[in-house]
Amino acid sequence: MDRKSIKNIIKFLSLIGIFVNIFFLIPLITGIIYEENIKGFIYYELISISLFSIILFLLKNHKIKMHSKDAILSVNIVWIMLGILGAIPLMLLTNINFYDAFFESISGFTTTGATIYNNISDLPKTILILRSTMHWIGGMGIIVLSTGLLSIINPTGTLTLFKSESTGITIEKITPKLKHTALKLWGVYILLTILDLILLKIEGMNLFDAINHAFATISTGGFSTKNESLGYWVNNYYILWTTTIFMILSGINFIAHIKILKGDFSGYKSEEVKWYIYLIIILSLGVSLIHFISSNDSLFFAITNGFFTISSILTTTGFATVDYSTWGQAAISLIIIAMLIGGNAGSTAGGIKVIRYIVMFKNLKAQIKKILSPYVITSIKIDNKKIPENIINNVSAFIFLYLLTVTFISLYLFANNYDALTSISAAIACVGNIGPGFGHVGPVDNFSFFSNTQKIILSIGMIIGRLEFYTFLLLFSRDFWKKF
Amino acid sequence: MDRKSIKNIIKFLSLIGIFVNIFFLIPLITGIIYEENIKGFIYYELISISLFSIILFLLKNHKIKMHSKDAILSVNIVWIMLGILGAIPLMLLTNINFYDAFFESISGFTTTGATIYNNISDLPKTILILRSTMHWIGGMGIIVLSTGLLSIINPTGTLTLFKSESTGITIEKITPKLKHTALKLWGVYILLTILDLILLKIEGMNLFDAINHAFATISTGGFSTKNESLGYWVNNYYILWTTTIFMILSGINFIAHIKILKGDFSGYKSEEVKWYIYLIIILSLGVSLIHFISSNDSLFFAITNGFFTISSILTTTGFATVDYSTWGQAAISLIIIAMLIGGNAGSTAGGIKVIRYIVMFKNLKAQIKKILSPYVITSIKIDNKKIPENIINNVSAFIFLYLLTVTFISLYLFANNYDALTSISAAIACVGNIGPGFGHVGPVDNFSFFSNTQKIILSIGMIIGRLEFYTFLLLFSRDFWKKF
Ligand SMILES: [K+]
Ligand SMILES: [K+]
Repeated sequence: MDRKSIKNIIKFLSLIGIFVNIFFLIPLITGIIYEENIKGFIYYELISISLFSIILFLLKNHKIKMHSKDAILSVNIVWIMLGILGAIPLMLLTNINFYDAFFESISGFTTTGATIYNNISDLPKTILILRSTMHWIGGMGIIVLSTGLLSIINPTGTLTLFKSESTGITIEKITPKLKHTALKLWGVYILLTILDLILLKIEGMNLFDAINHAFATISTGGFSTKNESLGYWVNNYYILWTTTIFMILSGINFIAHIKILKGDFSGYKSEEVKWYIYLIIILSLGVSLIHFISSNDSLFFAITNGFFTISSILTTTGFATVDYSTWGQAAISLIIIAMLIGGNAGSTAGGIKVIRYIVMFKNLKAQIKKILSPYVITSIKIDNKKIPENIINNVSAFIFLYLLTVTFISLYLFANNYDALTSISAAIACVGNIGPGFGHVGPVDNFSFFSNTQKIILSIGMIIGRLEFYTFLLLFSRDFWKKF
Repeated sequence: MDRKSIKNIIKFLSLIGIFVNIFFLIPLITGIIYEENIKGFIYYELISISLFSIILFLLKNHKIKMHSKDAILSVNIVWIMLGILGAIPLMLLTNINFYDAFFESISGFTTTGATIYNNISDLPKTILILRSTMHWIGGMGIIVLSTGLLSIINPTGTLTLFKSESTGITIEKITPKLKHTALKLWGVYILLTILDLILLKIEGMNLFDAINHAFATISTGGFSTKNESLGYWVNNYYILWTTTIFMILSGINFIAHIKILKGDFSGYKSEEVKWYIYLIIILSLGVSLIHFISSNDSLFFAITNGFFTISSILTTTGFATVDYSTWGQAAISLIIIAMLIGGNAGSTAGGIKVIRYIVMFKNLKAQIKKILSPYVITSIKIDNKKIPENIINNVSAFIFLYLLTVTFISLYLFANNYDALTSISAAIACVGNIGPGFGHVGPVDNFSFFSNTQKIILSIGMIIGRLEFYTFLLLFSRDFWKKF
């Protein structure tokens, strides 16, 4: 690694660092407004912004020209840095140790939404909005990464794969056009947030809760300001359905949203969106029916909570309206299916994602065709576009990696004497950036009881899931470090 | 479907039927020797052999010339027929219903070894040897299917895939050469059985137990004559190590064994055998160590039982020496890893199998290489032979199918209110043809408590796993029935 690479990485990290600390002014101002004791946080902001500014000043003549390897290394380090940048104010504002703070911070930035706090409702408002802000910042980054816009930084993003023949790294310059697209994506992201916020406010939330939940919804994060999560408003159907719809929108490819601005609805007609909607409807109706039959709740209540829960899980948001883990194991089975699917590529959602299942099922069909007619050349088409053979291998390897990671984290927890349901669902909930699982990590529980080591392993799981495995795995490849 | 196809299928089924009923003379003679009440069984044999003989006589001028579709359909029907052919004598000899009998019979023929009997030690000897005979017959069939010898019948067997460029159906005639290879495979199978039998007898088993356990070992079946399984001989280290070694041999590709007869050891030097042995050693030492540390047992006892248990599970035999589910969740985690791996292709072992993991890991490595050097054409080599791209897709689709099947059966059981560990391990144990799982289906438990429907679903799971998914799935393809 030469001096230029090191300078690239340091400047990149400092830019992200100052960006995050500027966004942290939102909780800082909130703390001042509510007159909370945030002296430590103010000092941290001053020191942090100063330090990053000094670094940027020293490197002001260095122009970032990232080699792909620099970019991959940077993105890996960024997540550790984000974890620490978020952990410090959490430790300054509440009485928790570093492991808890790091877990909470990573959970925030990766938009996982698993928490180590026992009593959320009583947390200082500064902490609450700080957590939501982490989600919101994380979501902004993920949008850009997962749409494959910065394929230089995330060469293995799903959309990068599907948008061009080459599946590898191309050293793209961030052209004015790309900058423009990024700004449009963020525009839509901010627009959706403001729309959600206004609706929630009109429908009865106070402004503080509306801001927090809008941040946590559009980023598919899932942190709430209440112990009951959205269950605090369980009788306000407007709030529940608004949140359901905004979760569903946030789980859709954001490129489809920016096309709408030009009146082009084609993005919503893709096979992925079609299946995503089908899956939400089928699983929601299934869960609603099971809940309706086995309880005294009204049909509308059952359907509202069914659609809310499945949308929350499938989009990997992780909000809850009621303790759905009490709906019985048949309903839980359907919810677990949703956990295993995930949202759309190009959104803030985590998990395996619908498009990869489409590829796998189409490959399966092609394989069966090949058995019957061995000499026919089969190919897979998605949205009438032929998918190159290597993409299938890439998707298989992705799913294999996902399952390996989930299996190993599950077995690690199981070996530490947690029950099977807790172990497996905690692993899926973290690696899939969902948040709540079942057993001891159900929708009304939290992750505080895990040991420090277990919290670190689960934090790494969240990061690996968020990086979609390859970017992380590359660090363990000999080729990566050869002639860096 | 034309008359010729129907005649092909009926004649094929009748040949298998008479073959099975001839082997059933082993339990019949045993029953006569031990003077057990087997009148019903004798009538069944007489009627069954007569019926199949009449059909074969009527079709004596019809020469089987199987179209591939006939073959695929036949193999699917054969498993249902085997289930029934085995279920009838079980119902005649013990007081169980059809669902129990069908489950037990399928478990026997697929060499799964899961049982619905509560008290095995007290079963009539006729039943015990009947169960072992089912294993042994099943193993003979599986050897021929899984070595890809009859690729006409099992076009998707792993070895078929790897032995030629074409991955589809080739309408091979059963040439004298193929017949010769089949006879050699069976020769090795019988030789291994006799060797094991003699050793077990010398080491202290009575002849009856030695025959039964030799049948159940070489077929990687796992039915025992004792409630304690091999634990009945837990202090006889000779018997335990003999069984361990014969289980390991039975999990190796049988083509490698027949090469030995010509003094050619190359079969044992393949990457698959190498990894298979590594995995057995690593996992066994891990389990032994955990057991040794957490108990008062001697190191040699711990190692003996560690190697026995991992060999039993990895080869999908399913014998037990002690209740290894009491070794703690860390040991169980390692055993679950063994359950998820399986033996070698071309053996009687079930599961995903080592070779498929090799393909997946090599594909993963190739994908990472491709990210770093997108314009380099990567290819996967196993045993220095290039693997065609389509094989990778085929293996991915297989693993995807395996996991879909296991996930759905697990969630089906979980939705019926079994705990997560029981649900998941029962699904893996049946689909992987292993036998015992954990929770309520642990090594000292049985499958009797499942409902009739659940037993049918689990039986189908065993068949699908045994058919390696594709042969079964083809029945649901429209192309399959088009112009049958
Ligand atoms: K989430
Ligand atoms: K078995």
